[in-house]
Amino acid sequence: MAVLVLLGLIVFVGPAFAAEDEWRLTDPDNTVVLDLDTGAVIIELSPDFAPATVTQFKRLLRGQFYDGLSFYRVIDGFVAQGGDASDIGEDSDEPTIRAEFERNWSDNLHFTSAQKPDLFAPESGFINGFAVARDPEAGKVWLTHCPGVVAMARGNDADSSRTDFYIVIGQSPRYLDRNLTVFGRVVLGMEHVQSIRRGPLSAGGIIDDPENRSIIRSARLAADLPLDERPQVQVRNSNSAEFAAMLEARRHREAEFFHHTPPAVLDVCQVPNSGRQQ
Amino acid sequence: MAVLVLLGLIVFVGPAFAAEDEWRLTDPDNTVVLDLDTGAVIIELSPDFAPATVTQFKRLLRGQFYDGLSFYRVIDGFVAQGGDASDIGEDSDEPTIRAEFERNWSDNLHFTSAQKPDLFAPESGFINGFAVARDPEAGKVWLTHCPGVVAMARGNDADSSRTDFYIVIGQSPRYLDRNLTVFGRVVLGMEHVQSIRRGPLSAGGIIDDPENRSIIRSARLAADLPLDERPQVQVRNSNSAEFAAMLEARRHREAEFFHHTPPAVLDVCQVPNSGRQQ
Repeated sequence: MAVLVLLGLIVFVGPAFAAEDEWRLTDPDNTVVLDLDTGAVIIELSPDFAPATVTQFKRLLRGQFYDGLSFYRVIDGFVAQGGDASDIGEDSDEPTIRAEFERNWSDNLHFTSAQKPDLFAPESGFINGFAVARDPEAGKVWLTHCPGVVAMARGNDADSSRTDFYIVIGQSPRYLDRNLTVFGRVVLGMEHVQSIRRGPLSAGGIIDDPENRSIIRSARLAADLPLDERPQVQVRNSNSAEFAAMLEARRHREAEFFHHTPPAVLDVCQVPNSGRQQ
Repeated sequence: MAVLVLLGLIVFVGPAFAAEDEWRLTDPDNTVVLDLDTGAVIIELSPDFAPATVTQFKRLLRGQFYDGLSFYRVIDGFVAQGGDASDIGEDSDEPTIRAEFERNWSDNLHFTSAQKPDLFAPESGFINGFAVARDPEAGKVWLTHCPGVVAMARGNDADSSRTDFYIVIGQSPRYLDRNLTVFGRVVLGMEHVQSIRRGPLSAGGIIDDPENRSIIRSARLAADLPLDERPQVQVRNSNSAEFAAMLEARRHREAEFFHHTPPAVLDVCQVPNSGRQQ
């Protein structure tokens, strides 16, 4: 909270932010290159919302843990889950991670509102480019399950995540919000995630034969790649005036194309979030 | 509306429906086989909501109109649009179709409620397996833009649809509801739709070079195929008690897995709608 003393008046103006650019580069230390058969998928991590999960994920990346593993549970319209299958019973020596389903609100967070109330929460919006929802009364904020979100799989125990993760490939399963740890989002190459081989619905999406699974050729932290191999990925800066204006334009459609004026609401998961390669 | 005269009382009980099976076969006369390079996509048509559009689409199918055409405008997370590109300026002799954005409510429609109010409408639910929304006050009901929905492209003129269609491949763009004619839905093979080659965002998804586009190998009405080549596809019967119970279970999650009870709401576009092949 910035306090201005002006002409003898004390004015509380809320968090003070300088004008920001429309696009920002992702931080190589929080950018993952997931190499699939059909191409590279770029993921941005969120240590702000899932510090312990991001720490473990980075450690695993540095150990080349995911190289050669596969997406073994894939349900069209829902999720593609990959890793060492410890989530479905394979042995693992990796430590479990405490749940990071939500975090406390802090006035340091730059929140850009999308919808109030949202169907699933008192308010939804964006923080650092990530779709979030918040409950001001409870003082909580969390990353929402939108398409392209990366989250940790777990068993019934809240603190049982280890190594396996999933990427949302269908309509936002918002009922999972605050029940699983979202720790990243796909910012480029979502079409490759959409090409991951599906499993049979009758088997809950599990692909028994490893030959039939889409493989993770490698998974690396961008910061660990040689400089000339690091992707330079720009994403929309959700702190910018342009971003807020884009949300507003989507909430109020005024193009001649619209014969029936859409309701003045916004689905936080239906906002374009693709990055671009420089 | 059924009227029962019972013990001298007149009781209005609403539409009377017999107990129905959990699954039903699609009607070959309203089932389309869209053959792509990666596999077959099965589409169910909705003459109840878009009779004129379905009539023209079937006529085009019978003329093998779509064979060899391609998906020329594909935006990841949004839509895959295919056809002869008359929507973006290619010449066409085909007649335009009047808009079928919504229809009048009729008590003959078997409506199974999903969410009231929905974020985008007074109420959402299902009719004949299709996700719909309705406005009882206005007496209108319409097919909603969920993933897998098939709709006609058009220019600014409401009645300018001709031949080009799109399939929704991302988070439901509900702001398009009542602004475009939805006339079908993918009931099988959505993973092949998700594999359609994307176009560059900088060009609004348009793929200039036909060589780079995913091709429609053929598109046929199932009824026009020899009996032994017709797909036998079952879809969930949204009139069944099992379907209503499935919606209720999704609205009230009681599994041990949930540590935070999700809000008791339901996104009509986040209900599993995949069919199965017999």
